[in-house]
Amino acid sequence: MQKLPRDPQNDYSREMAATRRAVVTAETGAALEHIGGFSFDPACLPGNIENFVGVAQVPLGMAGPMRVNGEHAQGDFYIPMATSEGTLVASYSRGMRLTREAGGITTTVIDDAMQRAPLFVFQDARAARDFGQWVEANFDTIKAKAEETTSSGKLRNIEQYALGKMRWLRFCYTTGDAAGQNMVSKATRHACLWMLDQNPPGLEHFTLAAQFDTDKKHSHVNSLHTRGKRVVAEITLPAALITDVMHTTAAALHKQRQFSNMGTMLSGSINNGAHFANGITAMFIACGQDVANVAESSAGFVYGEIKDNGDYYFSVTIPSLIVATYGGGTGLPTQRECLAVLGCVGKDKVYKLAELVAATVLCGELSLSAAIVSDQWVSSHDQLGRNRK
Amino acid sequence: MQKLPRDPQNDYSREMAATRRAVVTAETGAALEHIGGFSFDPACLPGNIENFVGVAQVPLGMAGPMRVNGEHAQGDFYIPMATSEGTLVASYSRGMRLTREAGGITTTVIDDAMQRAPLFVFQDARAARDFGQWVEANFDTIKAKAEETTSSGKLRNIEQYALGKMRWLRFCYTTGDAAGQNMVSKATRHACLWMLDQNPPGLEHFTLAAQFDTDKKHSHVNSLHTRGKRVVAEITLPAALITDVMHTTAAALHKQRQFSNMGTMLSGSINNGAHFANGITAMFIACGQDVANVAESSAGFVYGEIKDNGDYYFSVTIPSLIVATYGGGTGLPTQRECLAVLGCVGKDKVYKLAELVAATVLCGELSLSAAIVSDQWVSSHDQLGRNRK
Amino acid sequence: MQKLPRDPQNDYSREMAATRRAVVTAETGAALEHIGGFSFDPACLPGNIENFVGVAQVPLGMAGPMRVNGEHAQGDFYIPMATSEGTLVASYSRGMRLTREAGGITTTVIDDAMQRAPLFVFQDARAARDFGQWVEANFDTIKAKAEETTSSGKLRNIEQYALGKMRWLRFCYTTGDAAGQNMVSKATRHACLWMLDQNPPGLEHFTLAAQFDTDKKHSHVNSLHTRGKRVVAEITLPAALITDVMHTTAAALHKQRQFSNMGTMLSGSINNGAHFANGITAMFIACGQDVANVAESSAGFVYGEIKDNGDYYFSVTIPSLIVATYGGGTGLPTQRECLAVLGCVGKDKVYKLAELVAATVLCGELSLSAAIVSDQWVSSHDQLGRNRK
Amino acid sequence: MQKLPRDPQNDYSREMAATRRAVVTAETGAALEHIGGFSFDPACLPGNIENFVGVAQVPLGMAGPMRVNGEHAQGDFYIPMATSEGTLVASYSRGMRLTREAGGITTTVIDDAMQRAPLFVFQDARAARDFGQWVEANFDTIKAKAEETTSSGKLRNIEQYALGKMRWLRFCYTTGDAAGQNMVSKATRHACLWMLDQNPPGLEHFTLAAQFDTDKKHSHVNSLHTRGKRVVAEITLPAALITDVMHTTAAALHKQRQFSNMGTMLSGSINNGAHFANGITAMFIACGQDVANVAESSAGFVYGEIKDNGDYYFSVTIPSLIVATYGGGTGLPTQRECLAVLGCVGKDKVYKLAELVAATVLCGELSLSAAIVSDQWVSSHDQLGRNRK
Repeated sequence: MQKLPRDPQNDYSREMAATRRAVVTAETGAALEHIGGFSFDPACLPGNIENFVGVAQVPLGMAGPMRVNGEHAQGDFYIPMATSEGTLVASYSRGMRLTREAGGITTTVIDDAMQRAPLFVFQDARAARDFGQWVEANFDTIKAKAEETTSSGKLRNIEQYALGKMRWLRFCYTTGDAAGQNMVSKATRHACLWMLDQNPPGLEHFTLAAQFDTDKKHSHVNSLHTRGKRVVAEITLPAALITDVMHTTAAALHKQRQFSNMGTMLSGSINNGAHFANGITAMFIACGQDVANVAESSAGFVYGEIKDNGDYYFSVTIPSLIVATYGGGTGLPTQRECLAVLGCVGKDKVYKLAELVAATVLCGELSLSAAIVSDQWVSSHDQLGRNRK
Repeated sequence: MQKLPRDPQNDYSREMAATRRAVVTAETGAALEHIGGFSFDPACLPGNIENFVGVAQVPLGMAGPMRVNGEHAQGDFYIPMATSEGTLVASYSRGMRLTREAGGITTTVIDDAMQRAPLFVFQDARAARDFGQWVEANFDTIKAKAEETTSSGKLRNIEQYALGKMRWLRFCYTTGDAAGQNMVSKATRHACLWMLDQNPPGLEHFTLAAQFDTDKKHSHVNSLHTRGKRVVAEITLPAALITDVMHTTAAALHKQRQFSNMGTMLSGSINNGAHFANGITAMFIACGQDVANVAESSAGFVYGEIKDNGDYYFSVTIPSLIVATYGGGTGLPTQRECLAVLGCVGKDKVYKLAELVAATVLCGELSLSAAIVSDQWVSSHDQLGRNRK
Repeated sequence: MQKLPRDPQNDYSREMAATRRAVVTAETGAALEHIGGFSFDPACLPGNIENFVGVAQVPLGMAGPMRVNGEHAQGDFYIPMATSEGTLVASYSRGMRLTREAGGITTTVIDDAMQRAPLFVFQDARAARDFGQWVEANFDTIKAKAEETTSSGKLRNIEQYALGKMRWLRFCYTTGDAAGQNMVSKATRHACLWMLDQNPPGLEHFTLAAQFDTDKKHSHVNSLHTRGKRVVAEITLPAALITDVMHTTAAALHKQRQFSNMGTMLSGSINNGAHFANGITAMFIACGQDVANVAESSAGFVYGEIKDNGDYYFSVTIPSLIVATYGGGTGLPTQRECLAVLGCVGKDKVYKLAELVAATVLCGELSLSAAIVSDQWVSSHDQLGRNRK
Repeated sequence: MQKLPRDPQNDYSREMAATRRAVVTAETGAALEHIGGFSFDPACLPGNIENFVGVAQVPLGMAGPMRVNGEHAQGDFYIPMATSEGTLVASYSRGMRLTREAGGITTTVIDDAMQRAPLFVFQDARAARDFGQWVEANFDTIKAKAEETTSSGKLRNIEQYALGKMRWLRFCYTTGDAAGQNMVSKATRHACLWMLDQNPPGLEHFTLAAQFDTDKKHSHVNSLHTRGKRVVAEITLPAALITDVMHTTAAALHKQRQFSNMGTMLSGSINNGAHFANGITAMFIACGQDVANVAESSAGFVYGEIKDNGDYYFSVTIPSLIVATYGGGTGLPTQRECLAVLGCVGKDKVYKLAELVAATVLCGELSLSAAIVSDQWVSSHDQLGRNRK
């Protein structure tokens, strides 16, 4: 099988894409008609893709409107969701109707940090401990070094994790409107080169990454200490509305929550909710996010509480939501249009996007939980405690 | 903000999509030109999307060719990857070149099961234990009931998980070429209704789902007992090839692996590899998979070993890879074309797809690990143990 | 510093113990008067200790009486607790008073299995998969081989765990009244030697243990699949009794439980209860158990539920409780006396002991939870929502 | 069954203990001769036990001598181990011989912190976030308040963990020679009462503990951020010594380590070592530690590395080792004698004790690992690759 044509300039023309498609078709027999059916000039693509042949066309639906009372997102929003899973848009829309009628969702970004976590290995644990103290004492210089490489990244703090003679430094940055993984890699590498230049006593080995970032995979440290945005969406639902719209009750939802919490602990799950990943993924594809970050962004927590008056308080927390309104795929044609639908084009929009994702996730949790519970409720009426025919 | 037009038939015409886009534009000011620039007739969409407005156009590159010595995938393959993250296709292609020159990747599907895990709650733990024994004794009947609802789903076994008076039954099915989440929900619900009809003594409560499936989120039970396909990709790399193509050594890769394993344990990560999610996500978007399953499919394990002759054995295991070659988005236009590139259109192709995903993941692991290590290697040459200028 | 005297017979006389103490005193200056103040003939000790010098005298208190409605433990029991932590016996006794007045605790052993988990490594994942199928097909023979080495151990089943080219076989045995770690090691080793004799195709490496048992440390697989006894203790507390004895309410306990469940998930804890380990450890020391098994036995789950009439259902589940009434330290003088207090001397008593431990744990959970909550309740009366002076 | 006699003074006389034993014997038929055979005046017991009836006599052996090159422990030490598990003292002694001949063990306490983690619940996530900022701004005052209650406890820092509208504050103290759980509870409660007096805006609920300490149970946060002492023991073993004393090789130990690390990750274990808990528990019982803390102290990490010259570097890290040389059971008669054997009586001895525990754990890891591996090695010689008779 031949290699696909690639030239030094990595040519992003329609012609080169067609040439590559022709090679693939010749080699595999697969017609690539729709892959070639993109609507934009591929000259916009360098930095986003290599060996470009065309596009995946992912169906896009609009959920909502969703009402949000955020600090950054305020008002009603249509939510673009790219998915091929039937009922997903409809289900989220049902949750949006419920929460809109309840007055809207409160959203809050409570933490913000992107990481790179280099590892320094020493001859023994004492040298590693000494180095840790040196890092604390020299934080201001390390910060200055790191920030030489970026105008928007700010080194917020360095967490230290110690095991034997190893010391991981978890550099935490704010990164403006970008997701920031590349930015923090460069900044951290630059700071580390300076640190290496100081010849830390007893240093045996250095590596820029050894599984503590933890990029593109969930880790407990991310749930504890945030990766990307830590964002909360909350609402208090009037009892009557739950019955009218969701055909169930706060008590039934709360009972289900108890069992779900036990199931989460016993199964060893990283999320006690129903399906955060569905809403996050659909918005990520639509809005030009790095969709592989669903690996980290799908962790989370839901918490419910029956108030004294019978209302139901409900919240979702996403501890590692990685979003961007700048860089990556956010400037691509359809992706940019989706961000525009959300009012997330321009500067200082990333918290708004984070809030909208969290609010969407909350709607999906309520909708699916209610569906599960109302099915039960019907079932229990029919099957439990009486004869069925 | 007005609701988007929806009619009882959920109209999948170009006109209705345009009407919806016009409403969105009117309400938000966002032009939706490229979203409307899709190349196919939306009449194919029912069952995949609601409130259809158009498509997300995600850039598609072809990595490879990749050489695979699987049980189902054999030969050379171009790998379609839909992503907006620059260098991703190039990086995977580098790993594919390495593994191709090493003779290709061995791939094996070692387990296959899709789940639904209903919860039965009893008056006390003894009744729950009795029920568990009853389920074991009546497995054949339960299996027959479950399979009444599906021609391709087969109930393989039922795992039981017990806590207090609760008993989760984790129904494990094979599901043919479909991912099978809906199939197993229907089958399990049907079997459970029959079980409820038998009036299990002491039953207090039943729910079809309470966090043990665990759908759309990682859980340790999935890493232990598989969700979807459990698939392994392996290769033994000649020492010289590592140096020639990757500019590093087996010893350096192995050393990095030791630190990464410690970092994985200390950080509490669910994957000791570098970035499984990148390759999986890009293939999922391209090939019409349910991309939200990246939440589960991104867990995994890598294992490396230096052989006596200095060669490097390396493997990846994906314990919860959820893939399909039938149903969901697999029949959509560009998605189908990508499956055709892989030779995964038609019956009995899902294991082939699973093998190709695993092989791709392996290439990405080798490529990124080598990049990290060779950077270090250069760095250590420059900075460790001698003066820098 | 000299080595302590040891002779080939490992002499368990009072004289040899005194000689060793004299050496220790000579070398360290430490008087060992009370260590030498044991009350029994050390001739009973071979198999329990080496380099014997005397005893640790651990204070022993009697908690209770505790009322139990078990399958094996029925009636009222004093519970011997060896500890040096003040208030522990008193606190458990308070919980025992509460539960006794509520009619007693229901206890149930719901699973029973002790493990040894050898690892077989093959040339590739396919050979490992084939071996797994061979093990299933030859289970009866493997079972017969394993049971050649033991009269009380029965091989119940073999779980298989697969990663790359590795396959762990988790042999699960019942072990009569013994804890059984040694018994299952011998049996499994014997069975494995037979398996190795069959020359499994592609086998590269074998080890009797590689971190899947998981002996003397917690693992999630133990919480899922039991190590030792899986035992549940349950009770329904009348609302009035909670107020009278514990000075709090079911609602307050339940609210605290919600927060504790969230804290458990966020902190990544292996037990959502308060302090299982306290009661377990004190009983283990008193009753001659292998106290290091607290590492495994301290994992667990609590679950509470407010009933429609306001009563409070509460349960504890210990998934990995390792107990014995035969072997190890169970025959030592004070330890045997404590087992006699519990009526756990003689054959077929191990389930009775397991039930008593679980019931004790439940009492401790209720007592401490109520203490935390009633403190809050007072605090909130004083400090929240009004002025304090 | 009658309650045991208790008077308001909680009488700690030999007579009262005998009276209680007589009641227990009368009710249960169990003779309590040896339990009553203690050698000391129980007047020393208030604060350590209630309902005192006598003692558990746990066999005590002396392992060692063990050579330690610590910062606090330096020289050769006999290690008192209280256990009823045969071969344990002998196995640890074997590891001590190996490490002594290798020149001794390097030990380092790398972190020190005891916690209480109150939970503040607010009306919404924004109020919780504001409170978090207020806590940071008022740290000095909070610290002063906390330290009003203790002369030896110092509030080092407050970590914050956020989920929804909840905020856990993890107060981290150094606590001198005491383990400090009670000290930090009092200090934290006192500081919290002051904080509550400031009427934090939006506060809905407060509790002094909700599963984030996490006392008497393992949590991932403890492995990451230390509970008690974080202590490392390290050694580099000459290749020849491994063969001579342990009858195996560094290569074989290292290979076993690779598999054990994979087993740890797949099984979800909290310790990739063999049996930390054995040594810790035996020392804890002997030395008057709170043995229930084995629940936390049994977590840990081992790390091995083959050096270029074939030597084997090996380390253990105990991230949550809870030890004391003051308070609790440390002043009891036999317990004090054991601490004297270690030279750990008097002020500022707790780090010395921590180092000795870690060094002991390291010896046990080497000894058991070598035993497993050398058995394999023999086995493989006999059984793998050739015929057996």
